[in-house]
Amino acid sequence: MKMTDAQVAQFRDKGFLFLPARFSPQETALLKDEAGRLYREERPEVWREDNGAPRTVFAAHTFSEPFRRLAAHPRLIEPVMQLLDGQVYIHQNKINAKAAFDGAVWQWHQDYGTWARDDLMPEPRAMNIALFLDEVSAANGPLMLIPGSHKSGVLEAGHDLETTSYPLWTLDRKTVKRLADASGIVAPTGPPGSVLMFHCNLVHASPPNISPWDRTIVYLSLCEVGNHIRRFKRAEWIAHRDFTPIVPLADDCLRDLAREPTAAVG
Amino acid sequence: MKMTDAQVAQFRDKGFLFLPARFSPQETALLKDEAGRLYREERPEVWREDNGAPRTVFAAHTFSEPFRRLAAHPRLIEPVMQLLDGQVYIHQNKINAKAAFDGAVWQWHQDYGTWARDDLMPEPRAMNIALFLDEVSAANGPLMLIPGSHKSGVLEAGHDLETTSYPLWTLDRKTVKRLADASGIVAPTGPPGSVLMFHCNLVHASPPNISPWDRTIVYLSLCEVGNHIRRFKRAEWIAHRDFTPIVPLADDCLRDLAREPTAAVG
Repeated sequence: MKMTDAQVAQFRDKGFLFLPARFSPQETALLKDEAGRLYREERPEVWREDNGAPRTVFAAHTFSEPFRRLAAHPRLIEPVMQLLDGQVYIHQNKINAKAAFDGAVWQWHQDYGTWARDDLMPEPRAMNIALFLDEVSAANGPLMLIPGSHKSGVLEAGHDLETTSYPLWTLDRKTVKRLADASGIVAPTGPPGSVLMFHCNLVHASPPNISPWDRTIVYLSLCEVGNHIRRFKRAEWIAHRDFTPIVPLADDCLRDLAREPTAAVG
Repeated sequence: MKMTDAQVAQFRDKGFLFLPARFSPQETALLKDEAGRLYREERPEVWREDNGAPRTVFAAHTFSEPFRRLAAHPRLIEPVMQLLDGQVYIHQNKINAKAAFDGAVWQWHQDYGTWARDDLMPEPRAMNIALFLDEVSAANGPLMLIPGSHKSGVLEAGHDLETTSYPLWTLDRKTVKRLADASGIVAPTGPPGSVLMFHCNLVHASPPNISPWDRTIVYLSLCEVGNHIRRFKRAEWIAHRDFTPIVPLADDCLRDLAREPTAAVG
């Protein structure tokens, strides 16, 4: 699971790395099925769009065996330990369904902006690792990134409580234009099972999904253990307070589960 | 300006043809500047988004010299005459600005659906030819097309008076999903000056533009003269009633204008 020097250098420079098809169709299908089941549950961790379409399942690793294993998967955790140079814990875990036709916009923001302001996370020694559960294409609301924007540190932001269904510290238009004019915008697209890693200060957004195809992505936000949050203002299942270092499981932990008949039913 | 047999065959099969960078940066800049000027005019032909951002200038060829010339440009008109096998007139002319951050969605639709229902255009012997005035990328609300969907004829549609700022006959979700599952979705992207031709029954849509960059496209909807509309329900500048065949101008008609000092000021 070691990343090459070139990959590490690219991450430092651009603030992201895209690794197509890192999980098999079988592993991805297991997680996709489980996500579909979780979206139908009535519990505080499951959020819907204003119009009722599935939006986010928080903290699935605390109540779902497939997502418990994913959250300790060596293909996700080990590269992040390498990049953050230390042990990591799960700050946040989201399954974001940008549902066909209804999936809504996420305005331009930096994740660390929220973690610093709301959770008092001391430093940006944290990052995101995203796993595509569906094919992501230009048509279904791909994540848009401004390369290198993580080097700007924490940018000024306003607290947006209206545009999206989730409170977000969003950047002003002048800042977004300045950064994008300088470095462009990329929208990584690829098959289910692809992995996108990005720095917690990377400026990103995603448009609504007007296509007839769902676009589900799992986000693990991982933080170096010594850099854990200091304020517990948000719900525990939104900003976790268990700072125990993750011990990566075996590489076949999901493949094994897919083979167990009970899991397939569950 | 003759299209090759392969191009004609592709158009018949897929319902569209994309020709990157057919107009020079100089020609495109002339039109872009003029469009910016027109968007500031207060007149019924100039429409804005619900929030005031520029949206559409209709019928610019009737009150703007650069757009008068564009609407008779041989690089646009001659391929369409070839594909429709006859003389053509301008049914509709739109400059669509999908403004940075604010540009809104166009739901899935067929243009001929509107022309048949509202204007009583007898047959789909009409088509669109689009000229990009800005770079179109995955980031700024590209047009999405379902290849081959023009072969379905006129599909059932509902009159959407709410989602967008412009009344549109839009398709139901089941139909869009069926067509896209069968043939996929393509989103042609390219530099300013690129030309996209598509059949008037091709199913298409475009997402909002959340990028910091404008995305302006000129659409000429051209109809074979004998197939002119029979009902004059919509404003003359939305559905034209002048069925005079277009006589293509010289290929350098825009280049010449860019060189005239008065035009640069105008």
